[in-house]
Amino acid sequence: MAQAALRAGKHVWLEKPMALTLADAQSMADVAAAHPAQVTMLGYNYLRSPAFQAARALVTRGEIGDLLAFRGVYDEDYCADPDLAWSWRATLAQGGLGALGDLGCHLVSQMIALMGPVAEVTAQTQIAVPMRPSPEGPKAVENEDSAMALLRFASGAQGSFATSRVARGRKCRLQWEVHGSLGTICFDQENMNELWVHRANEAGFTRHLTGPEQPDFAAFCPAAGHNFGFNEQKVVEARDLVAAIHGGAHKGPDFATGLEIETIIHAMARSNGAAIRL
Amino acid sequence: MAQAALRAGKHVWLEKPMALTLADAQSMADVAAAHPAQVTMLGYNYLRSPAFQAARALVTRGEIGDLLAFRGVYDEDYCADPDLAWSWRATLAQGGLGALGDLGCHLVSQMIALMGPVAEVTAQTQIAVPMRPSPEGPKAVENEDSAMALLRFASGAQGSFATSRVARGRKCRLQWEVHGSLGTICFDQENMNELWVHRANEAGFTRHLTGPEQPDFAAFCPAAGHNFGFNEQKVVEARDLVAAIHGGAHKGPDFATGLEIETIIHAMARSNGAAIRL
Amino acid sequence: MAQAALRAGKHVWLEKPMALTLADAQSMADVAAAHPAQVTMLGYNYLRSPAFQAARALVTRGEIGDLLAFRGVYDEDYCADPDLAWSWRATLAQGGLGALGDLGCHLVSQMIALMGPVAEVTAQTQIAVPMRPSPEGPKAVENEDSAMALLRFASGAQGSFATSRVARGRKCRLQWEVHGSLGTICFDQENMNELWVHRANEAGFTRHLTGPEQPDFAAFCPAAGHNFGFNEQKVVEARDLVAAIHGGAHKGPDFATGLEIETIIHAMARSNGAAIRL
Amino acid sequence: MAQAALRAGKHVWLEKPMALTLADAQSMADVAAAHPAQVTMLGYNYLRSPAFQAARALVTRGEIGDLLAFRGVYDEDYCADPDLAWSWRATLAQGGLGALGDLGCHLVSQMIALMGPVAEVTAQTQIAVPMRPSPEGPKAVENEDSAMALLRFASGAQGSFATSRVARGRKCRLQWEVHGSLGTICFDQENMNELWVHRANEAGFTRHLTGPEQPDFAAFCPAAGHNFGFNEQKVVEARDLVAAIHGGAHKGPDFATGLEIETIIHAMARSNGAAIRL
Repeated sequence: MAQAALRAGKHVWLEKPMALTLADAQSMADVAAAHPAQVTMLGYNYLRSPAFQAARALVTRGEIGDLLAFRGVYDEDYCADPDLAWSWRATLAQGGLGALGDLGCHLVSQMIALMGPVAEVTAQTQIAVPMRPSPEGPKAVENEDSAMALLRFASGAQGSFATSRVARGRKCRLQWEVHGSLGTICFDQENMNELWVHRANEAGFTRHLTGPEQPDFAAFCPAAGHNFGFNEQKVVEARDLVAAIHGGAHKGPDFATGLEIETIIHAMARSNGAAIRL
Repeated sequence: MAQAALRAGKHVWLEKPMALTLADAQSMADVAAAHPAQVTMLGYNYLRSPAFQAARALVTRGEIGDLLAFRGVYDEDYCADPDLAWSWRATLAQGGLGALGDLGCHLVSQMIALMGPVAEVTAQTQIAVPMRPSPEGPKAVENEDSAMALLRFASGAQGSFATSRVARGRKCRLQWEVHGSLGTICFDQENMNELWVHRANEAGFTRHLTGPEQPDFAAFCPAAGHNFGFNEQKVVEARDLVAAIHGGAHKGPDFATGLEIETIIHAMARSNGAAIRL
Repeated sequence: MAQAALRAGKHVWLEKPMALTLADAQSMADVAAAHPAQVTMLGYNYLRSPAFQAARALVTRGEIGDLLAFRGVYDEDYCADPDLAWSWRATLAQGGLGALGDLGCHLVSQMIALMGPVAEVTAQTQIAVPMRPSPEGPKAVENEDSAMALLRFASGAQGSFATSRVARGRKCRLQWEVHGSLGTICFDQENMNELWVHRANEAGFTRHLTGPEQPDFAAFCPAAGHNFGFNEQKVVEARDLVAAIHGGAHKGPDFATGLEIETIIHAMARSNGAAIRL
Repeated sequence: MAQAALRAGKHVWLEKPMALTLADAQSMADVAAAHPAQVTMLGYNYLRSPAFQAARALVTRGEIGDLLAFRGVYDEDYCADPDLAWSWRATLAQGGLGALGDLGCHLVSQMIALMGPVAEVTAQTQIAVPMRPSPEGPKAVENEDSAMALLRFASGAQGSFATSRVARGRKCRLQWEVHGSLGTICFDQENMNELWVHRANEAGFTRHLTGPEQPDFAAFCPAAGHNFGFNEQKVVEARDLVAAIHGGAHKGPDFATGLEIETIIHAMARSNGAAIRL
């Protein structure tokens, strides 16, 4: 559908993940590249929160120095109950990747925005609940419930990465930290209005509450501490889409970046403990 | 305007505080009482957050037993800078009460929803920055920068109450705890998606993330941990207003409750350390 | 015993509270004053934690400017269970004051060290569990389970104060914040190795982990973040006692300060809502 | 020295890491095995905190079900400053491993106590500050500033592991979580008196404050919330040593377990991205 829309001269705004297979993602990115006048955008909404944008700005301005390491997780528990019924989500053909496709891709979208391109991936996956009940009896789960990875970035920095859909008690734990030579930044989407920053000359970590000094907050509220919401991320995303269509800067991620994300999570899915250079 | 609208047969939705003077609030409540077919509602938006509604439900269902005590603060720092220019906000005639009128009334709205009516108030106020710069030279601040109060509720429970607009580093610290004979509930609006609950038979405080099991969340998002936002409180408020107009239950606060809130904050403002029975 | 020891030429180190009655405390302070060569010290151990000492140093050095307000609580739940047996602790004759004598006095010891002398007290008390079981049947509890107070300090600053021994889920919640014209300091003994500080020019509150730059920590451990313990407070107290006996500076609190603390908590106990000038 | 002491019939209590090289650790374990009547113990003090022991007991009793995953870090920042002088610690011959030998081994000690034996390790290391100043000019740092690893446990569970001595703002961040099929446990040594537990039937994570219901706390204090300290871990360790010498159960870790820890960190040090089966 996306390719047909592009060929029909339309802009395309897609939810994530971009495609069920890496081949489809590649094909979509090719068609998008062949239609440069049309805007493509992917719904990686967590890139739009003021706190995340502020974190990226800190990194870009060099405020934490050279980047040394990234550590990130995205955990939820919506598949933790073994009695949860089998569904299409559990299939490779219709669901595609599991935790990586649903959750991990979000973490990758933030990670590459903060750290730059990934050079090498080594990963393991796990199916914690191999069979799930269905009206026809137990059926096999085909995609991963969790994944863990080691990463090397093109910059030389290191990364550790984990995602799970069976992490009891976690609801939207998209949590990461960036280690720089001059400071550290920490974030957890479950408290998406807090950014924790430490700089070399400071006593400890400082809690920055989301406020009008962070990107895109002031349009929603003039006062700090008045929480930005999950859904408002989507409002910013739509604004960015419209701005790009009207000739403004494209803030991404477009299909090219989407393909970069898919390449990383599919490498994690097939690594089985071996290093894969990207 | 509100009274004219009521007399003209209109429903009235007003921001808080209800009026600059207690006499005006009384008059407005009287007019509203004389027009029972029309809906009045006040914009105490913090009553609408899913976490607050869940807290009230816990109290109402008796899950923390008999209520013993309330402890609450609402602090911000928007007047902490002594170089902030004098404005109409600093006047009794145009700004009305200070921290009590802007912030404290919100805390009262939640407090009486949780604890029931207040029987007695003893309070102190303080003007931390007595003079502020203006183009004509320094001018006097007429209303309080902060207030503290002791309360007795009609139920016999105790209360401590504080509000400040000069509390350095606080942005939306509407924070309270309710002590019951069987448990304790804690909340802080700066982390409005967390409710902390302890029950007698539990090991400690449990962090409840806002989710679809809390009132009014599911209409915004199907998954817990995906943060509800400050502005979405206002959406719920508008929905409640429309529902009341269309004959549904009035979830309050109407002008009668608004008058109750005004009575309490004006008692705090004039107490000067003496107990005032309400 | 303390008076006899002083008269016998001994130094005296006493646990808190100093005495069961204010008259006894007065008498003890008088005897101590008559024996100035002998050291008296009271076991207000929470004054000795590195984090508290660091907080006091920040205040003393003027780093948060002029003091505006104090807000403090000390809550535990050891009497929350109504089936807890009646004991001597519940009597005025043998237990003395209730929550004020056991917990509140600790909070006062920190409060006056931070804020200076108290000028006026207005308080309420509450007995949440009026009767407790005993082998001879239910017996009356004579002293308060909780107390709340408003305070004016000699400096003109305001204070709010609360203590409870029936606060479900609280174990050692000696928690306070000091509001200054240039900053705010927050502390909670349940996380006694954290001090939260905000200064006017900073983005938010910074978490200071206890470390060797805080008073008296380096003698226990050379590295920050390696937690100081409750019992180690007592080690510092003993060291301070020995130092005072050997002619070093007396870091307090001696019997004179103990009497100041007793005066405040007994004023709270008898206020019954009326202002008491000290 | 340790081997000579064992041969001389002495019990041996050693600080960690056990040895500079894996060969030495092997030799020490061999000598210890040849002297089974003598007690050996290693100073992995973090195993002794009441919160850690409580966590291990929860796991052992099956309260979080089958173990799925471990995620742990141990970060400090004592080498983050590039101007810190070169010292023997930076050499393989005298300092041995870097972050792995100083910090990572502690995390391994807790990890295997919680998760059981490690079957496979894949790791990367990094030297963030390759040269450090010395009186003779800049000298090379030979051992790693940080390491990250993927792990497979013998049980089939997964693990992610990271340690750094250049993590700005971290002081004693020995932090981990254990994911089970029925619950999750989280811990951070910087708040060593808190254990966070979620069980399948609960609303969220509950904060368990260290108290007398946790192992070895009651001997130090009768009341929960009165913080256990870093140094008191060492007191428990010494008590365990003496108990083992006097014929009580050996709570470990002895030289055999020490060798297991060394085997893991040395595998991490030499992996260079390749999987190593243990």
